[in-house]
Amino acid sequence: MLTGRSESARSSDRARPDVAVVGAGPIGLAIAWRCAARGLRVVVHDPEPGSGASAVAAGMLSPVAEAYFGERQLTGLLLASAARWPAFAAELTAASGTGIGYRTEGTLMVGLTGDDLAEARRLWAYQQGLGLPVTPLRPSELRDREPALAPRLRGGALAPTDHQVDPRRLVPALRTAAQRAGAVLVPQAVAHLSDVDAAVTVVAAGCGAAALTGLPVRPVKGQILRLRAPDGVAPGFRHVIRGYADGEPVYLVPRADGEVVLGATVEERADTTVTAGAVQRLLRAGVDLLPELAEYDLVEAVAGLRPGTPDNAPILGPLPDRPDVLAATGHHRHGIVLTPITADLITELVLDGVPDPLLAPFGPERFVGAGSAGRTPAATGGGLGGLRGRRGPEPTMEGDRWS
Amino acid sequence: MLTGRSESARSSDRARPDVAVVGAGPIGLAIAWRCAARGLRVVVHDPEPGSGASAVAAGMLSPVAEAYFGERQLTGLLLASAARWPAFAAELTAASGTGIGYRTEGTLMVGLTGDDLAEARRLWAYQQGLGLPVTPLRPSELRDREPALAPRLRGGALAPTDHQVDPRRLVPALRTAAQRAGAVLVPQAVAHLSDVDAAVTVVAAGCGAAALTGLPVRPVKGQILRLRAPDGVAPGFRHVIRGYADGEPVYLVPRADGEVVLGATVEERADTTVTAGAVQRLLRAGVDLLPELAEYDLVEAVAGLRPGTPDNAPILGPLPDRPDVLAATGHHRHGIVLTPITADLITELVLDGVPDPLLAPFGPERFVGAGSAGRTPAATGGGLGGLRGRRGPEPTMEGDRWS
Repeated sequence: MLTGRSESARSSDRARPDVAVVGAGPIGLAIAWRCAARGLRVVVHDPEPGSGASAVAAGMLSPVAEAYFGERQLTGLLLASAARWPAFAAELTAASGTGIGYRTEGTLMVGLTGDDLAEARRLWAYQQGLGLPVTPLRPSELRDREPALAPRLRGGALAPTDHQVDPRRLVPALRTAAQRAGAVLVPQAVAHLSDVDAAVTVVAAGCGAAALTGLPVRPVKGQILRLRAPDGVAPGFRHVIRGYADGEPVYLVPRADGEVVLGATVEERADTTVTAGAVQRLLRAGVDLLPELAEYDLVEAVAGLRPGTPDNAPILGPLPDRPDVLAATGHHRHGIVLTPITADLITELVLDGVPDPLLAPFGPERFVGAGSAGRTPAATGGGLGGLRGRRGPEPTMEGDRWS
Repeated sequence: MLTGRSESARSSDRARPDVAVVGAGPIGLAIAWRCAARGLRVVVHDPEPGSGASAVAAGMLSPVAEAYFGERQLTGLLLASAARWPAFAAELTAASGTGIGYRTEGTLMVGLTGDDLAEARRLWAYQQGLGLPVTPLRPSELRDREPALAPRLRGGALAPTDHQVDPRRLVPALRTAAQRAGAVLVPQAVAHLSDVDAAVTVVAAGCGAAALTGLPVRPVKGQILRLRAPDGVAPGFRHVIRGYADGEPVYLVPRADGEVVLGATVEERADTTVTAGAVQRLLRAGVDLLPELAEYDLVEAVAGLRPGTPDNAPILGPLPDRPDVLAATGHHRHGIVLTPITADLITELVLDGVPDPLLAPFGPERFVGAGSAGRTPAATGGGLGGLRGRRGPEPTMEGDRWS
């Protein structure tokens, strides 16, 4: 569609962006960074960058611990994205000049009671069946690794390749990297896709994608707590800890600066109130797994809305009836881990106009059925042309361009 | 001391206040209001009025429910002050023109488990033995009065004369009343008593009294939560509810605007951090007693420092070695209920120079012993002269004077 235009046509719309990204969360900013680094003219629309789900997210990069029954395709994407994280983190740190709290101590999965352990072992067996690195540990082995764990824990397992990053450092770093690469941030909301004028529009608006595109993205409320180790010291544990405590699933993410993220509820609600019951259950489960948490300061209790989808997997690719509009949303509980692969695959799609085979299971068309008057890709015709070469030679370093 | 001075001496210090109050919490402001309304020239020193224990207090007026073993003298003072509350509330509302959230639905005392109920019954029997109005209630009778109470509660009792007020409305009302009566607020801290120049100095500085006077006032930390009924409706209960839940003492104070105060810890610590363990225990106990709290918004978690004393009773009266300095501090958990009587008795003492017999058990001299070089009232000589008549005829309405 966009290829083969004459030079005069190109020069006449010099001010028109190649790519407009709607949403400056990690997904939108990473896409903007990658596209701008490839020489495309990029604008990012968001009145409040980083104010969505990422502001509340814990930042676990846990494709192994989050490999659940019935989600094999999603697990494959999570693993593929997690594999890109070490290079992505290094590249982003260099491009932005700031740390993002990337840590590789691994994740301990634990069960408090016998019932909790039985539940967890079913999942670990499934994960091991997929060939994933999950090493069961006896209670004594657990406490050798993390002496602060409750003595009454019945057992656990180590997922050494499940890492973490700090989303509240990730978003500013991505913003800096994107701007240094030449992307322009427009601090305005986009109410309709027609408000955006660009060759390609990327909708990375989290829950806001539903109103913009009609895609079945729904808010899934999560409440999360931030604690702080007393006296400003580092928390008394290094691994991400995930577990079940009397049936309550809970995780604890330690940061080097003393912060511990304790989460999270998963609620089919669209409000962002913090409720007494949720806070109580999270704290109880957290303290049961790691008793020293009782003495930690409670510094924040907050709720956010994850962009959920009917099959829990993200929606990535062109809209069936608007091939110039790419969805990059619906990441639900996996937005942080899926940031690198989403940015890479969407950028390649923008450049080449052809989806990577990895995207096949995650296209918007899987939700286009009876409810949307049979608009399928085949029925709409047309396609994304691809913008590769549109801006001439690509810079070799994204740091070459500053906004 | 201050009587009998010549007219010329009086006119030479026209600008000198009769009374300097150090501390603009409810105690200090109520004293200032009462003194100013009696025609005295009053200044109140506080860099941040109402920022002490009262900002965290729940506002229960509970001399019956808080009549504990071994505190009979304190209980007498609490009862005497609570008896003054209805008139005090009416007068203050009229003088300030603002409501203070005074409510008279009474207090329900409950026990969750059999052990909790046994513990509570011992106390109720003691309170009944003092002749106090405590009416035991069966579980069905409890729920007739408050259907939102947990069905598993084992029993309770009604203290119909234990009421409540909202401290966050009380302080601004007292400030307005004091200023309307002519008191002047000086927004500066007092580091030493010598920084204050007045005929009489009243130290109503809460925990700060220790540094100013050497009196044994120590901080006793309390953590407290504020919840809010969903959708802005009033809470589903009307009584103040106090109880034991699996050994955890807890109270719930409903406000007409939807707020519920849930408290409180009693900790021998001087920090004001909010800790995960305390919040968890308070929420667990609150939800156990009143399950609907789980759906309430958690809007605030905060800690404050009560001014505690060795015998849990306040310190009221002249310092042994400085009869022109009156202590009005050490109110510990009882500052709100004791506000009216403290203000009345201290004002009378300022005017007459003679302590009311009610004050006898609560004087500073009870803590002056081996540790303070034998300075007793007898050893210091002198006394408070009394300022009655110092300002000519008393106004009949405190509203006559505005600052």
